[in-house]
Amino acid sequence: MEQENTVIKKRLSRLREAMKENGIDYYLMPTSDFHNSEYSADFFKVREYFCGFDGSNGTLVVSADEAGLWTDGRYFIQAENQLAGTGVTLFRMMEAGVPTIDEYLLANMKEGQVLGFDGRVLSAGIGQRYENELAPKGVSLKIDKDLAEEVWTERPALPCHDMYVLSDELCGQSFKQKLELVRGRMKEYGTQHYLLSKLDDIMWLTNLRGNDVECNPVALCYAYITMSDFVLFAQSKEITAEVKSYCESKGIKLCDYHELVSFIKDIRPEGDILFDKRNTNFLTYRVLKQLAAGSGRDLKNEKDPTEILKACKNETELKNIREVYLRDSAKLTEFIYWVKTNVGKIPMTEYSAAMKLDSMRAKLPGFIELSFPTISAYNANAAMAHYEATEDNCAEVKPQGLLLVDSGGTYMGGTTDVTRTMVVGPVSDEIKRHYTATVAGMLRLSKANFLEGCSGKNVDILARGPLWNMGIDYKHGTGHGIGYILNVHEGPQNIRWRFAAGADEAALLPGMIVSDEPGVYIEGSHGIRIENILEVVAGQENEYGRFLHFAHLTYAPIDLEAIDTAYMTSEDIENLNEYHALVYEKVSPYISDEKVLEWLKEATRAL
Amino acid sequence: MEQENTVIKKRLSRLREAMKENGIDYYLMPTSDFHNSEYSADFFKVREYFCGFDGSNGTLVVSADEAGLWTDGRYFIQAENQLAGTGVTLFRMMEAGVPTIDEYLLANMKEGQVLGFDGRVLSAGIGQRYENELAPKGVSLKIDKDLAEEVWTERPALPCHDMYVLSDELCGQSFKQKLELVRGRMKEYGTQHYLLSKLDDIMWLTNLRGNDVECNPVALCYAYITMSDFVLFAQSKEITAEVKSYCESKGIKLCDYHELVSFIKDIRPEGDILFDKRNTNFLTYRVLKQLAAGSGRDLKNEKDPTEILKACKNETELKNIREVYLRDSAKLTEFIYWVKTNVGKIPMTEYSAAMKLDSMRAKLPGFIELSFPTISAYNANAAMAHYEATEDNCAEVKPQGLLLVDSGGTYMGGTTDVTRTMVVGPVSDEIKRHYTATVAGMLRLSKANFLEGCSGKNVDILARGPLWNMGIDYKHGTGHGIGYILNVHEGPQNIRWRFAAGADEAALLPGMIVSDEPGVYIEGSHGIRIENILEVVAGQENEYGRFLHFAHLTYAPIDLEAIDTAYMTSEDIENLNEYHALVYEKVSPYISDEKVLEWLKEATRAL
Repeated sequence: MEQENTVIKKRLSRLREAMKENGIDYYLMPTSDFHNSEYSADFFKVREYFCGFDGSNGTLVVSADEAGLWTDGRYFIQAENQLAGTGVTLFRMMEAGVPTIDEYLLANMKEGQVLGFDGRVLSAGIGQRYENELAPKGVSLKIDKDLAEEVWTERPALPCHDMYVLSDELCGQSFKQKLELVRGRMKEYGTQHYLLSKLDDIMWLTNLRGNDVECNPVALCYAYITMSDFVLFAQSKEITAEVKSYCESKGIKLCDYHELVSFIKDIRPEGDILFDKRNTNFLTYRVLKQLAAGSGRDLKNEKDPTEILKACKNETELKNIREVYLRDSAKLTEFIYWVKTNVGKIPMTEYSAAMKLDSMRAKLPGFIELSFPTISAYNANAAMAHYEATEDNCAEVKPQGLLLVDSGGTYMGGTTDVTRTMVVGPVSDEIKRHYTATVAGMLRLSKANFLEGCSGKNVDILARGPLWNMGIDYKHGTGHGIGYILNVHEGPQNIRWRFAAGADEAALLPGMIVSDEPGVYIEGSHGIRIENILEVVAGQENEYGRFLHFAHLTYAPIDLEAIDTAYMTSEDIENLNEYHALVYEKVSPYISDEKVLEWLKEATRAL
Repeated sequence: MEQENTVIKKRLSRLREAMKENGIDYYLMPTSDFHNSEYSADFFKVREYFCGFDGSNGTLVVSADEAGLWTDGRYFIQAENQLAGTGVTLFRMMEAGVPTIDEYLLANMKEGQVLGFDGRVLSAGIGQRYENELAPKGVSLKIDKDLAEEVWTERPALPCHDMYVLSDELCGQSFKQKLELVRGRMKEYGTQHYLLSKLDDIMWLTNLRGNDVECNPVALCYAYITMSDFVLFAQSKEITAEVKSYCESKGIKLCDYHELVSFIKDIRPEGDILFDKRNTNFLTYRVLKQLAAGSGRDLKNEKDPTEILKACKNETELKNIREVYLRDSAKLTEFIYWVKTNVGKIPMTEYSAAMKLDSMRAKLPGFIELSFPTISAYNANAAMAHYEATEDNCAEVKPQGLLLVDSGGTYMGGTTDVTRTMVVGPVSDEIKRHYTATVAGMLRLSKANFLEGCSGKNVDILARGPLWNMGIDYKHGTGHGIGYILNVHEGPQNIRWRFAAGADEAALLPGMIVSDEPGVYIEGSHGIRIENILEVVAGQENEYGRFLHFAHLTYAPIDLEAIDTAYMTSEDIENLNEYHALVYEKVSPYISDEKVLEWLKEATRAL
């Protein structure tokens, strides 16, 4: 008989009391912060607190007599273990016969009942969907209560770290210049008021940075923009003297982060209000709707104009990015050398290797933080989509097979992301076949010439082609955009072979930077991914339009020990030789250790 | 001073009288038949009759004191000449400052005025747009009058040719089997009534054929389908005894073509009515709307379910198509031999060469008609997008440069389409570079492996890539679908790098056939296009999905005299050699002339 989890049961019973006091019949806890960030701080781990499940995706729904957790296939086993004895039912998402949350609520909630959730941790779209689906049943929503506030006594504080200012020289454009561009777009949309909720967009626009989200140099904040005012809502404690003085000098009005709602309630806008539903939480959306209705204005749901402005890097950003990528590539090269020369000779685990790389990177000039937690996965572990090695739970790296390391840093000068899969010992012919095709695909995409107007959908097949020719696919996109001293994942561009219905299939434009990361994942055997970051470069413009192509930003060796030219066309071989010649040429000036240089010369030899 | 065109002026004045009698202030004449067919019969050339302009695209708008013709850039010069002295103003579409038809009507029409047009020759979408735009101005529409009927005294008759029956054996599926599939889709849409207006879809569904549209073996008709009935509206004179008896035996109820509207007015549908707005004319659409409103039903605007069923050829169709393409390819091969051995020795013009090919094709077993008018264009003429050589106006083919021939036939067993560009004399290095890249692109696309779910957008870059690498593009799609003993252009699939907003980016599916026709067009110099037809074939299905690839249907030699391997990768050379080996192997059994065979052997030699 399974043991009772009395800790969780007590927490749930206190939650149910709070629900009763607040007139809430069903309480829903998703996995998000107030801005739908990629990483949620401990403060936001309400779902984990109330059911014990700590996977990266899950929604907990609690009623007076039932509690259910929804999560996806990656986490079924983990969730089953962590929910044992809690009385919480596991709903295996996407499995036949398992209701979705919407279906569950529709089937169970009764007329007059109330669904509660913190309206700040649910996106406008999802909140609206619940509202529309449940209204006909006579169910209402209560979204202004974070019940965890009352029940979770030892809750970690809301992240609150000092903000800081990037110089205009480092950013290439001043806040004022950027604001002018944004206001220009607002005019095009015919709006005079604009609520911006997306953290990295606000950072980009203000040339400020923060530290409230893991691996993302962003502060929790909102921005309210009119043709005359710019109001930044941030936690007062984060506003250092430097930031305060910067804001004063730039005409940025400061309000506390928590004052947004009351601020909006007092506005009397003269025109329609611009916002981007994708990036707005449900509470903010409802407040905006009330504002619009109360003032006889319309809400204009458009893509945040900051998104595309941020995505197309300016010349200063590009210059700095290129330099940062060379330093980062050189450091990775030294790491690869370290792994390949030490494996089997010193104790080495996935975790210790990752720590080694992280500490090497931390020594680079201008290092701020990792751009995401380093992925270090040995052999079969690399075939698991979301494998995470921890100190207590990781494989030893033996002199056999492959070690995949996906890593990056944020520096004063750019944010990097790179994956190399290293040969640490003998590899099979199958592995060589997969490795070679992956490399061929990465390089074919990097050599593409295409007309402006193409999206990632047009070029994806260049990377995927060599694998598709072998009947193999990878179940992830080929490429994502990357921020400048910002988030390692940013839109709007994506290189994918298919897009979700309604997704923004954004055109590739000069100045965008994008990853190029095909891979092969064979369950129980091995995982291979090779990721370079590319810059989109304008080529000739003629009667046909403007041609674009890519330039590499990443210059790190690709392991020739897993390359078999029998699986390459002569063009693929040329591509690899050309790339490797550039790697040596560009990266060697950043490497001082003669042994590494000697090794690199050999590692980048022409085939 | 330009001479007055009294013929046109008289016609216009009679039209204006008729407008007055019918209470019409502005009368609009587009270029279409009642089914938006690719080719319009003489009966439909109303616009040409009233202004003299006979280009393939143009809309004439006439009011009491003004007349304007809208056409596109291809026809500006021609239209200027043909409109001289008519008093009709030329509106150059897409030129700065030139109003669109919509803008013109909005600016000129006054409250209470009436816009007239024959509601059968305008699509539902465009008609509705005029209606919606003009209604707020107080302008109403009169769409049930074809004023040409009253004015155009010597008007050619509506096309009316005997229909005929294809055997179930030739079609691979009986009408009954197809109807069951269509009714299945109707159920999925939740509809019990379905009006089908698309001619080739009705032909496909009924296994009937006709001859009312140039190069399209279709009859003017409509089909009204319920769960119990199938009513075919066709001109009574077209119904031969054979067709009548076939229809009787299959339960196809026959009504006259002109009875559709009165028939619909009498229906009392029990459920919603399915139709495809893209393929429905405005008059029919309005009648359907009245029917729906009057019976409390809804119109369900969905893609004609016949479209995708027709596009994915069945095994019998594919077997016949493969055979027909071999015969057609062999005939083209003989023609190429004829051109190359006779050029400079006998009188040869673009037109006479086309006639030669047409007459050769006509001798093939089961030949019905050309699938489109043969395009034969010499050197610089081939660079013009819509060049048409006529007996009186065509270039002599000299032993210098290139002759582009794009042609095809409809046979009992399939419809073909193929383009070859032949070297008829010395060619420049530039031409070889362009020719070689075009061939490389055509072959690269033909070798694609891709996952089911990909559309033409995913693979287009394979064909275009070698040209894009040179900074060259072609301003047309790479590929279109092709009918079975039907229209040479059919949907829904298309291979393009971009689609118009809202266009159907249909996935490629097994059994579809699609053209692969990259090209280079250098104004004043040369035009190159190489077009093969490909079949989409299912490959392996595994954990990643189902893989698809292409197989060639066309097997005709590609002119090695314009190939320079210096511009090819080793893979491109392999592709060409492999293709040419197949050409010889597959086509030689269909060629009896030893001289041609000997030449073909050499023409398909490995490089």
